[in-house]
Amino acid sequence: DNSTCNVVMVAAKLLKEAGLTVVVLEARDRVGGRTYTVTGPKFKYVDLGGAYVGPTQNCILRLARELGVKTYLVNEKERLIHYTKGKAYPFRGPFPPAWNPVVYLDYNNLWRTLDSLGKEIPANAPWTCRYAEQWDNMTMKELIDKVCWTRSEETFSLPSSLHMNSLLFVNVNVTSEPHEVSALWFLWYIKLCGGTKRIFSTSNGGQERKFVGGSGQISEKIAEQLKGSVKLKQPVVRVSQHPGGVSVETLTGEKYQGAYVISAIPPGLTMNIHYEPELPPIRNQLIQRVPMGSIIKCMMYYQKAFWKDKGYCGTMMIEDENSPISMTLDDTKPDGSCPCIMGFILARKARELIELTKDERKQQICQIYAKVLGTTEALKPVHYEEKDWCGEQYSGGCYSAYFPPGTFFQFSRALRKPFGRLFFAGTETATKWSGYMDGAVQAGERAAREVLHAMGRISSLEIWKEDEEAQEVPSQPIRESFLEQWLPSVPAFLSVMTISTVFLGALGLSLVKPSMRPHFFK
Amino acid sequence: DNSTCNVVMVAAKLLKEAGLTVVVLEARDRVGGRTYTVTGPKFKYVDLGGAYVGPTQNCILRLARELGVKTYLVNEKERLIHYTKGKAYPFRGPFPPAWNPVVYLDYNNLWRTLDSLGKEIPANAPWTCRYAEQWDNMTMKELIDKVCWTRSEETFSLPSSLHMNSLLFVNVNVTSEPHEVSALWFLWYIKLCGGTKRIFSTSNGGQERKFVGGSGQISEKIAEQLKGSVKLKQPVVRVSQHPGGVSVETLTGEKYQGAYVISAIPPGLTMNIHYEPELPPIRNQLIQRVPMGSIIKCMMYYQKAFWKDKGYCGTMMIEDENSPISMTLDDTKPDGSCPCIMGFILARKARELIELTKDERKQQICQIYAKVLGTTEALKPVHYEEKDWCGEQYSGGCYSAYFPPGTFFQFSRALRKPFGRLFFAGTETATKWSGYMDGAVQAGERAAREVLHAMGRISSLEIWKEDEEAQEVPSQPIRESFLEQWLPSVPAFLSVMTISTVFLGALGLSLVKPSMRPHFFK
Repeated sequence: DNSTCNVVMVAAKLLKEAGLTVVVLEARDRVGGRTYTVTGPKFKYVDLGGAYVGPTQNCILRLARELGVKTYLVNEKERLIHYTKGKAYPFRGPFPPAWNPVVYLDYNNLWRTLDSLGKEIPANAPWTCRYAEQWDNMTMKELIDKVCWTRSEETFSLPSSLHMNSLLFVNVNVTSEPHEVSALWFLWYIKLCGGTKRIFSTSNGGQERKFVGGSGQISEKIAEQLKGSVKLKQPVVRVSQHPGGVSVETLTGEKYQGAYVISAIPPGLTMNIHYEPELPPIRNQLIQRVPMGSIIKCMMYYQKAFWKDKGYCGTMMIEDENSPISMTLDDTKPDGSCPCIMGFILARKARELIELTKDERKQQICQIYAKVLGTTEALKPVHYEEKDWCGEQYSGGCYSAYFPPGTFFQFSRALRKPFGRLFFAGTETATKWSGYMDGAVQAGERAAREVLHAMGRISSLEIWKEDEEAQEVPSQPIRESFLEQWLPSVPAFLSVMTISTVFLGALGLSLVKPSMRPHFFK
Repeated sequence: DNSTCNVVMVAAKLLKEAGLTVVVLEARDRVGGRTYTVTGPKFKYVDLGGAYVGPTQNCILRLARELGVKTYLVNEKERLIHYTKGKAYPFRGPFPPAWNPVVYLDYNNLWRTLDSLGKEIPANAPWTCRYAEQWDNMTMKELIDKVCWTRSEETFSLPSSLHMNSLLFVNVNVTSEPHEVSALWFLWYIKLCGGTKRIFSTSNGGQERKFVGGSGQISEKIAEQLKGSVKLKQPVVRVSQHPGGVSVETLTGEKYQGAYVISAIPPGLTMNIHYEPELPPIRNQLIQRVPMGSIIKCMMYYQKAFWKDKGYCGTMMIEDENSPISMTLDDTKPDGSCPCIMGFILARKARELIELTKDERKQQICQIYAKVLGTTEALKPVHYEEKDWCGEQYSGGCYSAYFPPGTFFQFSRALRKPFGRLFFAGTETATKWSGYMDGAVQAGERAAREVLHAMGRISSLEIWKEDEEAQEVPSQPIRESFLEQWLPSVPAFLSVMTISTVFLGALGLSLVKPSMRPHFFK
């Protein structure tokens, strides 16, 4: 009903096309949910919420095509920058390279292991993975400690360690901390996006493109098609089911009767609703256990794209506890106008820096950009826009819900299990690109077809559909280089060393950390 | 307003006594919240929710005394039973003893360490502890692994390990799993109850007594005093603040105007309410991050208290993955009538077994009681009552909210921070026996005095009050025996061994686990 309107609008569109009468109840005074496009003279338009699309996100790409919304490439022509220990290192490719060979082996093995563990998890039934309980009972911090040879114990208090790279990876992908999230859930989340490279990449990955004119157009254009059926400022406060149907009440006291209801609210925010009859126990407890991530999205506008003159594309991965921003991308318009750097304040940092004023955040952001890009031009922005999602009552946070340890194994089966005449959409219920606009579209359409099935209009086999690859945004296969595939992990490397070096044998072995692999492959 | 009515009623009582006009809005059709006393011919009365009180819980004891509700001792005359690896071991004292000297040293050191770490955490400001961030970033499972010499890695998949004891300790005290909760939060929670022995003990501890006639009387008697001001079946759906005051709307469309509002709802369940203006970002995200624990409370009634004939008091600590129940206490009435064993189905087990029928649970419970007590008499109950708290819309679970890792450090400061004219009570906001009836009373009265202070009636120094010790329930100091205080931890013991045994030195040291202590005492 509310919030991630993207989703419910998609469902409504499909159902209306099937000849049904639909009403969309939206809590806010606008459609779009976690997408939010704002216009203004200084920047024309800007996506303050969900913005990025890329290859394999075929649901959202097909919908955009239908609605006549075009995509453009996020600039990645020039070099990216990895900023760590106070120095900027330009690079190309999805991940910052490591010069230290031990670190290189360790990271190569980490990404490879995350992907291979993910393959064990069924996308549509993660609780059935044979390691589900074991992996759910640890945080990603624990998993990283197990997989990586060097301990991250100090990492999370002393930011100068090797593991910052994996900390940033978790922060950027799920707007939460490695110690906050279930390893099972995180592995599943990455798997649903096609793996570590696909999710983290700009070119050939999740951040390859943006929509010309902004992502908010998707919901706005559907709203036009549904005109009259979309009710704004109608937060739902009650869902009452009775043998004949469902009645829904909103905060303004309006009542709606229907045969079925689709909820497209993030699962945790369905706590906003009072249910009659009460929810089943597992769902009643599930919805208390899925907090939304923490993010402030920050757009810094400049007179010109000075970073391109220096040979940088605008992507910065910043490892510095004193930097508000952890990750940036160029947000200049496709025609070169409104030069802009988009930056994320993520997870713990969002919670800290929300206490500052907007202007204080702006100052701090300019200062770190000046350091990383090596020029005082970064200190002279012409405009600043930001959006704190932590304070949004009807989003709760962004991008998505996360599962703390110990919850995904026992509660995920309730995520999209219908409750009587109440069906569940929302990007959190998707089985591909969950947490993204693409997942939202998949979930909304699936829930709509669940309703059609409940009405006897379609068979159960027609509920789930796979989109064909979008012609205009083709995906390249994710390649693993020979080295990436075959280089040993640090423990394996050390084992070889110990075998070949008799005298050092005992010492070497005592350094080997127990890794996930023996468990996993036994 | 809703739910833990205990609390808000206490606040209302105090404010009414101060001459103010109060209205209590209760979501359910009854008062009492997480306390719930039911009457019936088979068992006279039974507490299906919060029931136990003990020494140092001076707020609830004082309130009960005022209202004329008496306590009685929970039976602990005969021996307790520790059931592990399929065998029953009778014992006396708060904790099951360990016969293996390594296990004994390890446990002794664990309880001692939990208490000493707790001393570092300020009860009223846990986020200011100098180890707050470090301890919040790990789960209790991780902390136990660090403190204990033997790893619990296998514990949580193979239940036969040494660590079951600490698993049960977490399950029983906070109805959640060691891998689900923040170590900082758990250490704080135990500290607020006076430490590991006080919280876990029957005699001289948290479970020493129950109320004659049931704990539900407390709220019912206050409701009588407030007659006319208590509105049942009025779940609050909106709190709107404006310069002149606060307006509150309920699900039935009624509107109430007031100068101040006290919320006594568990923090996570305040998600049920729509706020105008929106909550501050940290509170908006806090309330998504505090799930309620999982428990089914089960009462098995028998013809006679056959366990007493066998020399058992009725307390069983059961370590068996196939047992639904982890912990029992005698629940026979003080006059010896209605012989009964009270048992808890906790955390992961509650989520599993909620799928069974009531009768299936009853059968499984009788079978484990028969095994533990060694008699088929346990198979012939005369009556069974149970209460699943996971399915309760207006409790969310029981006993209390828990904090997953990474949340207590950044969000706990918002727990009872007033938001304009909205003040926060609820046992989760207490600074002593949080999660208990005693904490609920402390919190309710403190919030009431915060309102009086906001009105200019009392000074800020009068907000917090400490109760005198209840004469009728005196506390004995928690004693540590000479051995408990001075016995070494396993690593310390091994270090001594290694020093005295030159040849084994290298080997011994390589077995020593890094413990919390070096970190903690450095």
